[in-house]
Amino acid sequence: MTPKPVQLNSGRSRVDRLRLSFSTLRADAFLVTHLPNVRYLCGFSGSAGVLLVEPSRSTLITDSRYVFQAQEEVSGAKVHIAKHGLLRAATEALGHRRGRFRVAYAPEHVTVAQNATLHALGGARVRWVSGGDFIERLRAVKDPGELALMREAATLISEVFAAVLPKIRPGISEISLAAEVEYAIKKMGGSGPSFETIVASGARSAWAHARPTSKQLRKNELVVLDHGAILRGYCSDLTRTVFLGRAPAKVRRLYKAVLEAQGAARQAIRPGVKAGEVDAVARGALKRHKLAQYFTHSTGHGLGIEVHEMPRLGRGEETVLEEGMVVTIEPGVYIGGLGGIRIEDDVVVTSKGAENLTSASREFLEL
Amino acid sequence: MTPKPVQLNSGRSRVDRLRLSFSTLRADAFLVTHLPNVRYLCGFSGSAGVLLVEPSRSTLITDSRYVFQAQEEVSGAKVHIAKHGLLRAATEALGHRRGRFRVAYAPEHVTVAQNATLHALGGARVRWVSGGDFIERLRAVKDPGELALMREAATLISEVFAAVLPKIRPGISEISLAAEVEYAIKKMGGSGPSFETIVASGARSAWAHARPTSKQLRKNELVVLDHGAILRGYCSDLTRTVFLGRAPAKVRRLYKAVLEAQGAARQAIRPGVKAGEVDAVARGALKRHKLAQYFTHSTGHGLGIEVHEMPRLGRGEETVLEEGMVVTIEPGVYIGGLGGIRIEDDVVVTSKGAENLTSASREFLEL
Repeated sequence: MTPKPVQLNSGRSRVDRLRLSFSTLRADAFLVTHLPNVRYLCGFSGSAGVLLVEPSRSTLITDSRYVFQAQEEVSGAKVHIAKHGLLRAATEALGHRRGRFRVAYAPEHVTVAQNATLHALGGARVRWVSGGDFIERLRAVKDPGELALMREAATLISEVFAAVLPKIRPGISEISLAAEVEYAIKKMGGSGPSFETIVASGARSAWAHARPTSKQLRKNELVVLDHGAILRGYCSDLTRTVFLGRAPAKVRRLYKAVLEAQGAARQAIRPGVKAGEVDAVARGALKRHKLAQYFTHSTGHGLGIEVHEMPRLGRGEETVLEEGMVVTIEPGVYIGGLGGIRIEDDVVVTSKGAENLTSASREFLEL
Repeated sequence: MTPKPVQLNSGRSRVDRLRLSFSTLRADAFLVTHLPNVRYLCGFSGSAGVLLVEPSRSTLITDSRYVFQAQEEVSGAKVHIAKHGLLRAATEALGHRRGRFRVAYAPEHVTVAQNATLHALGGARVRWVSGGDFIERLRAVKDPGELALMREAATLISEVFAAVLPKIRPGISEISLAAEVEYAIKKMGGSGPSFETIVASGARSAWAHARPTSKQLRKNELVVLDHGAILRGYCSDLTRTVFLGRAPAKVRRLYKAVLEAQGAARQAIRPGVKAGEVDAVARGALKRHKLAQYFTHSTGHGLGIEVHEMPRLGRGEETVLEEGMVVTIEPGVYIGGLGGIRIEDDVVVTSKGAENLTSASREFLEL
């Protein structure tokens, strides 16, 4: 295995930044079980692996399917192939320690069953302590290398939207349109969709999280297209709503209101502002149009290795926005029978406010 | 909401079969947190939901994004839209009970953090007990309706393989070939891939779980294509390995050995046989060719709503095969530098032995 340089942020490696938690937690090690966190910390992208971070070494534990991949991907950690389960190998790797010691883990990412296994294997010597969401908070602030990738991922999905736009026509089914989107993502350089593409037309567009069906798009319908790409491990997320034909005045008014709410939320974003304040601004804008009751989800979410990360731009969220955070801004209204409208961009928080990563136009398209 | 008939197996609804666990567990209710289990029991396919099964009623709890979808999909359960979290709504729904009571859940599908929430919300009145993998064991045995869907899903992916076969040529990239596969799945009637399509060529085919890259397929290389489709909620899974050009004698011998191991495993499948015995048969066949050390994963896995279900056909697995179980048979050999070969079919366990769901030919293709 050729060691590769660990990516830096604020002059420290990611694993070293995790080690900063050790003193507060009084921990001797951190067992990282959530795969996106494992990937963030050491580069491993397989589907089975845990990372054990100790003060002076890190060990990526995976299984025999990933011998070659781990050798190629992992940096800054020793690779160990587990024969009898990842958790057993992790506790065995701690066997060299003397006396009692404390190991941190994230309670959000360990099941009750795994917890029982860890306690049985670690015995009385190990005290398992909560590391909370320390790694997620590290991940929320992107370094310049991550931001470059995320800008590329956001540009890619904007280009995919432009490429499939001519296909958004009466007669194509929702699922076929989703197939075109996901095909274009891969053909245009992405590794795949960052989530199952949402295509919802007509009355179904009022389902905020509709799966595409065999229903065909028809004239005089709203179409919500929510899609994202993964590019070298990083996600983008883009929603546009179009109308097939000339939209009634009511639909145009709704679109304008959502666009206004989205713009207001964008304007509200800057370092030091609470996530919940941004949500309140979007909600307030829709309230002025008497549409607040149709806005049934939060204003946005963090984006990165996962398509939903910290911070959540939701009601009452106390997280304070920081430079380098990447979030979606995606207010929407959903009216039973009539349909739904959602407009979503990805932005990065900079010292000057929100900067768009998304390049697609937000103009209302009547196709 | 129009109630729809609940699907039957052995004359009882699925939820009623779950209720059979109540006496053994001395449980007053079962809180189902794993989404595939929720879907199996009540039909809901959204991304956030828990199902609370009580002796005489069931409640599907989801959030405001899924108001319409839940109304359309759920059968045999009341729909409740949670305002302050699914787990809180679930414990509140139990508020009508008097005195102390016991609620079962699956420790594999509840995180340590959720467990803490449940204990805090339930207080001293609720005793949370392990329901183990009771629902997964129900799901392992498919009813006739499920088998019909799974046969369709397996036929679909066999047809997708036939459709993309002409594109498996030198010059196409792994990721482009994966894009063609996933496009064809949707265009041919599937709702999407059942997992991220694996295309691994040349030396990379020795990575049993390789993600497709921009590497182009070249002449005189092995290509492993592992792909699956979801059709109305049920998964298929198919692997074929082809050679671009005329294969060296060594590669043909390897293919023949893997095919022999796969056939031997298929022959070994019948009701009453342990899963581990089937694995041992495949392993034994490869051992006779001195290839056992290159077979680095288990022989197969259950298949259904999830792409990995019970039973696992792995070393020492004690699960006894039953009529109606659906499993993959997929031995493989992976040799660093040379590449990998895997052959995978989906079969259903019948009284007469394994019956193929997969229709694609297993003949060695030199393209």
